[in-house]
Amino acid sequence: MSSPISVLLINGPNLNLLGTREPHIYGYETLQNVVDNAEKIAKEQDAVFTAFQSSHEGAIVDRIHQAKKDGVDGIVINPGAYTHTSVAIRDALLGVEIPFIELHVSNPHTREEFRHKSFLVDKAVAVIAGFGTKGYEYAILHVCTQFKKRQQ
Amino acid sequence: MSSPISVLLINGPNLNLLGTREPHIYGYETLQNVVDNAEKIAKEQDAVFTAFQSSHEGAIVDRIHQAKKDGVDGIVINPGAYTHTSVAIRDALLGVEIPFIELHVSNPHTREEFRHKSFLVDKAVAVIAGFGTKGYEYAILHVCTQFKKRQQ
Amino acid sequence: MSSPISVLLINGPNLNLLGTREPHIYGYETLQNVVDNAEKIAKEQDAVFTAFQSSHEGAIVDRIHQAKKDGVDGIVINPGAYTHTSVAIRDALLGVEIPFIELHVSNPHTREEFRHKSFLVDKAVAVIAGFGTKGYEYAILHVCTQFKKRQQ
Amino acid sequence: MSSPISVLLINGPNLNLLGTREPHIYGYETLQNVVDNAEKIAKEQDAVFTAFQSSHEGAIVDRIHQAKKDGVDGIVINPGAYTHTSVAIRDALLGVEIPFIELHVSNPHTREEFRHKSFLVDKAVAVIAGFGTKGYEYAILHVCTQFKKRQQ
Amino acid sequence: MSSPISVLLINGPNLNLLGTREPHIYGYETLQNVVDNAEKIAKEQDAVFTAFQSSHEGAIVDRIHQAKKDGVDGIVINPGAYTHTSVAIRDALLGVEIPFIELHVSNPHTREEFRHKSFLVDKAVAVIAGFGTKGYEYAILHVCTQFKKRQQ
Amino acid sequence: MSSPISVLLINGPNLNLLGTREPHIYGYETLQNVVDNAEKIAKEQDAVFTAFQSSHEGAIVDRIHQAKKDGVDGIVINPGAYTHTSVAIRDALLGVEIPFIELHVSNPHTREEFRHKSFLVDKAVAVIAGFGTKGYEYAILHVCTQFKKRQQ
Amino acid sequence: MSSPISVLLINGPNLNLLGTREPHIYGYETLQNVVDNAEKIAKEQDAVFTAFQSSHEGAIVDRIHQAKKDGVDGIVINPGAYTHTSVAIRDALLGVEIPFIELHVSNPHTREEFRHKSFLVDKAVAVIAGFGTKGYEYAILHVCTQFKKRQQ
Amino acid sequence: MSSPISVLLINGPNLNLLGTREPHIYGYETLQNVVDNAEKIAKEQDAVFTAFQSSHEGAIVDRIHQAKKDGVDGIVINPGAYTHTSVAIRDALLGVEIPFIELHVSNPHTREEFRHKSFLVDKAVAVIAGFGTKGYEYAILHVCTQFKKRQQ
Amino acid sequence: MSSPISVLLINGPNLNLLGTREPHIYGYETLQNVVDNAEKIAKEQDAVFTAFQSSHEGAIVDRIHQAKKDGVDGIVINPGAYTHTSVAIRDALLGVEIPFIELHVSNPHTREEFRHKSFLVDKAVAVIAGFGTKGYEYAILHVCTQFKKRQQ
Amino acid sequence: MSSPISVLLINGPNLNLLGTREPHIYGYETLQNVVDNAEKIAKEQDAVFTAFQSSHEGAIVDRIHQAKKDGVDGIVINPGAYTHTSVAIRDALLGVEIPFIELHVSNPHTREEFRHKSFLVDKAVAVIAGFGTKGYEYAILHVCTQFKKRQQ
Amino acid sequence: MSSPISVLLINGPNLNLLGTREPHIYGYETLQNVVDNAEKIAKEQDAVFTAFQSSHEGAIVDRIHQAKKDGVDGIVINPGAYTHTSVAIRDALLGVEIPFIELHVSNPHTREEFRHKSFLVDKAVAVIAGFGTKGYEYAILHVCTQFKKRQQ
Amino acid sequence: MSSPISVLLINGPNLNLLGTREPHIYGYETLQNVVDNAEKIAKEQDAVFTAFQSSHEGAIVDRIHQAKKDGVDGIVINPGAYTHTSVAIRDALLGVEIPFIELHVSNPHTREEFRHKSFLVDKAVAVIAGFGTKGYEYAILHVCTQFKKRQQ
Repeated sequence: MSSPISVLLINGPNLNLLGTREPHIYGYETLQNVVDNAEKIAKEQDAVFTAFQSSHEGAIVDRIHQAKKDGVDGIVINPGAYTHTSVAIRDALLGVEIPFIELHVSNPHTREEFRHKSFLVDKAVAVIAGFGTKGYEYAILHVCTQFKKRQQ
Repeated sequence: MSSPISVLLINGPNLNLLGTREPHIYGYETLQNVVDNAEKIAKEQDAVFTAFQSSHEGAIVDRIHQAKKDGVDGIVINPGAYTHTSVAIRDALLGVEIPFIELHVSNPHTREEFRHKSFLVDKAVAVIAGFGTKGYEYAILHVCTQFKKRQQ
Repeated sequence: MSSPISVLLINGPNLNLLGTREPHIYGYETLQNVVDNAEKIAKEQDAVFTAFQSSHEGAIVDRIHQAKKDGVDGIVINPGAYTHTSVAIRDALLGVEIPFIELHVSNPHTREEFRHKSFLVDKAVAVIAGFGTKGYEYAILHVCTQFKKRQQ
Repeated sequence: MSSPISVLLINGPNLNLLGTREPHIYGYETLQNVVDNAEKIAKEQDAVFTAFQSSHEGAIVDRIHQAKKDGVDGIVINPGAYTHTSVAIRDALLGVEIPFIELHVSNPHTREEFRHKSFLVDKAVAVIAGFGTKGYEYAILHVCTQFKKRQQ
Repeated sequence: MSSPISVLLINGPNLNLLGTREPHIYGYETLQNVVDNAEKIAKEQDAVFTAFQSSHEGAIVDRIHQAKKDGVDGIVINPGAYTHTSVAIRDALLGVEIPFIELHVSNPHTREEFRHKSFLVDKAVAVIAGFGTKGYEYAILHVCTQFKKRQQ
Repeated sequence: MSSPISVLLINGPNLNLLGTREPHIYGYETLQNVVDNAEKIAKEQDAVFTAFQSSHEGAIVDRIHQAKKDGVDGIVINPGAYTHTSVAIRDALLGVEIPFIELHVSNPHTREEFRHKSFLVDKAVAVIAGFGTKGYEYAILHVCTQFKKRQQ
Repeated sequence: MSSPISVLLINGPNLNLLGTREPHIYGYETLQNVVDNAEKIAKEQDAVFTAFQSSHEGAIVDRIHQAKKDGVDGIVINPGAYTHTSVAIRDALLGVEIPFIELHVSNPHTREEFRHKSFLVDKAVAVIAGFGTKGYEYAILHVCTQFKKRQQ
Repeated sequence: MSSPISVLLINGPNLNLLGTREPHIYGYETLQNVVDNAEKIAKEQDAVFTAFQSSHEGAIVDRIHQAKKDGVDGIVINPGAYTHTSVAIRDALLGVEIPFIELHVSNPHTREEFRHKSFLVDKAVAVIAGFGTKGYEYAILHVCTQFKKRQQ
Repeated sequence: MSSPISVLLINGPNLNLLGTREPHIYGYETLQNVVDNAEKIAKEQDAVFTAFQSSHEGAIVDRIHQAKKDGVDGIVINPGAYTHTSVAIRDALLGVEIPFIELHVSNPHTREEFRHKSFLVDKAVAVIAGFGTKGYEYAILHVCTQFKKRQQ
Repeated sequence: MSSPISVLLINGPNLNLLGTREPHIYGYETLQNVVDNAEKIAKEQDAVFTAFQSSHEGAIVDRIHQAKKDGVDGIVINPGAYTHTSVAIRDALLGVEIPFIELHVSNPHTREEFRHKSFLVDKAVAVIAGFGTKGYEYAILHVCTQFKKRQQ
Repeated sequence: MSSPISVLLINGPNLNLLGTREPHIYGYETLQNVVDNAEKIAKEQDAVFTAFQSSHEGAIVDRIHQAKKDGVDGIVINPGAYTHTSVAIRDALLGVEIPFIELHVSNPHTREEFRHKSFLVDKAVAVIAGFGTKGYEYAILHVCTQFKKRQQ
Repeated sequence: MSSPISVLLINGPNLNLLGTREPHIYGYETLQNVVDNAEKIAKEQDAVFTAFQSSHEGAIVDRIHQAKKDGVDGIVINPGAYTHTSVAIRDALLGVEIPFIELHVSNPHTREEFRHKSFLVDKAVAVIAGFGTKGYEYAILHVCTQFKKRQQ
């Protein structure tokens, strides 16, 4: 109970391009800025923070499996394109039974039809989209202050 | 620029029941608590804050029209059931050209199929759902700090 | 237990035209006749009876909220056109947790395709349609004799 | 005119299990109880009453053909599973031109998607569902008191 | 025959914004201009003219009911957003049995998919769209010159 | 080669009502007339003729199995309502590998949507519909003159 | 009554290839053979016979218009590919109000999905398919013997 | 600017039957009457008027190409059956970049489902339907008075 | 516990043709071989074994009802064509609450689209397909060794 | 074998406008330029080259029939709008059994939904789109160098 | 012929969690247990056995390619989440032309809609689901005893 | 401007099997042959050429990111199975803003339904399919001669 909350931030495919790719949609902040801000907020709440980015679906699945071994209490995930195509990531999140928040920098409902469907959203605790890179701050803060320490 | 941001919080049908209706889904906070918290946050940001609740579609449309005359700069709207059925509210928001955030207390994608469709979401600046009544705080804060003063 | 059952009869949009509108479909009895008959049957069962009609979706929502405060034990609702379009009335009925019977004077399945879908029916205790204005009598009788007094 | 109304009650497949099958859905009354009650009500209205149950689609078709020869004036049919799959029973009912009421013990719209479609409902005079075994009483009463003697 | 034709012009939700809302779509004429022009044309044809605007679905339903009592012979209705969502207005128009013309200022088929469906159009005598505010003139003229005086 | 062609005529559910049921659709000839005419035509072509009617899906399946043992060379089948619902009859026809003609007295495409789909048609040698009871004559003639004697 | 029946045979696009195109589907008889046989049968019934083939949709429409002026009493049409795409031919047939039989040499339901839909079939008196070129004989015979002389 | 507006009226397949075909739907005026009236109105507005009718899709495409060479400023087109099936006419209209009004004598939404879809409507300036042959007058008048002289 | 497991093997329509019908799909073993092998395996596990085949939907329903009276603990069912069309068999299996395995000799997903849907599969404990007649052995073995003795 | 390859280039409706119609989509080269280039390439490969353009579906069908008589070995066809609506052209190409390449100047998948479907593509040897008028060169070259001389 | 059968067992994403993830669905046996049992059964049949697990789609594709080089005769694959999303694995299996059995521990048809679709099943020799970890034993046994040694 | 064009050729999953996998569909040339030919053509045009193949979605995404850093001006991509399932590759291509041509060796529209949909095609400059391995030559040539040097 007195041990700190542990939060993991996962960014999916192409999010390493953040700040360079289609900035009219995704803004000018780089992934490094985003992760640094997120870490700062987590630290202020005395939380343990780790971050991971990959464009490999299997690597994200593996990382989620690892999270369970590491005792992570909550995940903030921006699944990028895998939002719309990956059942494997959904299954990994269900398999480790760690509650998660789904995050998108822009609002996917203003874009192509196929981006309106998410394989994660019906299992997510919450979803936040269109707040730009600010959304990471709200989501990390929410995990750190509202999620409970999980039983190991 | 130096005049304060003006924010309007709209709650749609049945949200007057908040805190009493299906609390396993919507939590135990009443609408009054929610509005008071929202107002407090807006005040801390030196913003002008007003709130409105109605179960009448036409009354919400009228209120949005009024918002333009009042010089409102941003709207946070929890459209409740009208999310899924009202083109009139969509048209009112488009007509007054005030940017808005769509908010839901619970995550509609964990519920019935017909709640997965929103007539507002493709025009919303951002959407936040499943953060419970905490979501109101993040959304109001976002409008107050990130939205710009509009030209009259 | 010894206090009487309280039943509310709600009629939706255009049902004030009953007896005048498309009589080949809806019959020649007026709404006043229907309400009077319903009241007579309820009285015979020592039940408390109230009736309400409106063509305003929001007014019906408000009336359902009021029913909870009034200690209503069962609702018979002919939602008229709102059967097919109103999530707000569905949410109101779910919000107040009062069991209800959905009633139609004619059989909607003999009419346009869009009348085959109901936003209420999967939450209704029972549904009765095509019995003409006689259906009100069976439904009121059923609530008065088969529904239980609810805990306040 | 002075000859009594003749009513036929048909129960489809698996309804012989009534009172034993999934009692949380269908209640505890047996088919024999239901038929006995129905007969009692018909007798009180001076009507001729017969009942038939079969799990064979063809047998139900044959029985409906027989009804015409017997001069039946109205049918109450709980088609069970054949509601959703039998065009043959629909055609039999249309072929003999005897008006009928479709009845279900539970409300099929609270169950699987495929139970929401009925091959009979758009030709039924009326439909009643979710009133439990009480529904048989209302339907039989309705035929006996509201249906007209047919020309032979 | 010698008594004048009576025509009612109904404008639905958000049409009070005409001339101010999205002028690249709806043009710069205000609702007041439109109504004045319509009245002038009706007067030239010796017709009785009344106009009504509301963003409340129920109020439009009530107004249509009133039209029957007032002996209106033809309705020109721009249902705005309720075109796509209101069965209640359809039922009201069918209930009073007054012939009507459906009108849109812009051509809805050049806009979002959901605007391509109308709950009124299959019951309308005629439909006119994309003629800008000029369309009101053609429609009013058509009712005044081509519709027949109805039997009271 | 010199042994005569053997043809089987199958009529499905409700066709025993032919001549009495909905004569505006199906005509006034009875099934007995139809079978007698068919037999006469077959006899003129020196063919062996048998006929079968049942409203029981299983009985039709059994009869088709029997046809193989009897050395039937061609089947004319009016599957009635089972056209639209029976995979079992399709499978029986495929199982015995006897070529067949699908026949309807009326044209099903002028009737309900669900009558437009046939579970047999893509395996039928030919299909004939809307020729009234005359269609039986053409179909029987076609089998007798155009089908080949099958290898036993 | 004593004047002879007049029958028109229309063959649509690519049917000039009959006997050369995909003979495993359409057989080896040429269009000339087919027309000659048809004419012979019509003559035997003392009917007036004309035939027309074109791959031009508009030319077929024009020919149907001409048929009315010529006093044609019945049309046998093999619309070929226009079966699936031409509303204009449907409208021409409806416009001249001459009853027609739709004919296909092969059974379209054994072929591509898009060949299962016909723009004519719900207005055809009858449909015959899969009888090879023999079908023309049955259809012409049917028109000559079963259709009635039309009023001019 | 001072040169007169040039307007082209195109009527598609089967419209040569106007006044004779299904008069309960299309009225009793002939195409010649319609064209004469249209020409008279255009003349009153000092406009150049030409008219064209064909049941050939390709001929209509060719005529539209010609219109560009002729300096036509606006087209009123009643595409008849090609409304629902012709992409070629759509492409021709887009190719010549002449603004057009889509016109139907009756209201297609009161007829078959496949008539509810138009390949032109989303590119039309305006659409008018159900005004009978009067609609031609409103549409021609609108082109003559509201369309602008195009740059050559 | 010490009383033996009782298993029932049901084969649906056309499976009496096994070994003769389309052997490239279903193999050369006859139904008798299959039943004998199944019985042998059950005997080796000290289980009570019975088998039933019918092409009559109603007879299969009746047989399932009987199974409950007989104390059957598990059913292996190859529903044949009724897989895709019978809600009655589904309801019978649910009604008797006996766990079952769905079996197909071939793999239905390699065949027609309509064979991809099963009315039983979402209620089956397990499903096995494409193992040829060997599948019966695995399924019977599984019931005998893995299913539990049911409470009477 | 030593006789030269014969290639036919077909351009469908509106392609005569090439170079003038929507040049941002189709480029600035005229059809004459395209045909001249294509001919030059064919000549360099010692091939026989002919070209045809029409906006008439029937004329294209007729031209394809002619190609067979002319001994054409391969067709390059830009079907324009008929890509999406013509079964007749598909049937003509299948009927003459000449292999063909489907060509589009622009990429239809970047345009309207209805342009994503082609009635030819599943029978085309190859498809090329979006290469502008250069695509004609690649396609003609491919036919001339890769297609085989067909047996007459 | 005398060389032993070689079988490969592939487990897809998240199956490394077997025994720990959602045990009410997947049971308590670990992947190591499953592989050990499978190996034991293969050994008893004198078969060569190898096993592979990965959550990387590409790694599974690569492993299937390797299987061809290794002379594998049959594959048992539990594709996990890739069942529903991977065309690449389907293509790999088709590319190496090794017959395979698709296996699921639980019955996917009792779960979410999107799990009802498999990209492999129509190419699988057989499919087995819902037998828990016992299914691996049946499938491996089937490959070892029923599959044939493939030609290299 | 004077610096050479740089082109990247990407081949997706299973294309390493080219020349060995399903040669009736994909031909007998190996991937090495294809790449060598492509390089030769690029060299002739003084272009910089690199090639990459992987069956890993993430690796292809990473390689596209690298392409931007390397100053690639155009990509030819045969996405193989990822054509139909990968949004991540689409996003990578959009993210680096390098124009690309989508290439398939065979014509996917002659194969399974799910191969008719591409996640790339609406963003591709051009698409070429069914030209066998020759298609690589046309596509590389097109990039080298028609694409422009991009700004760094």
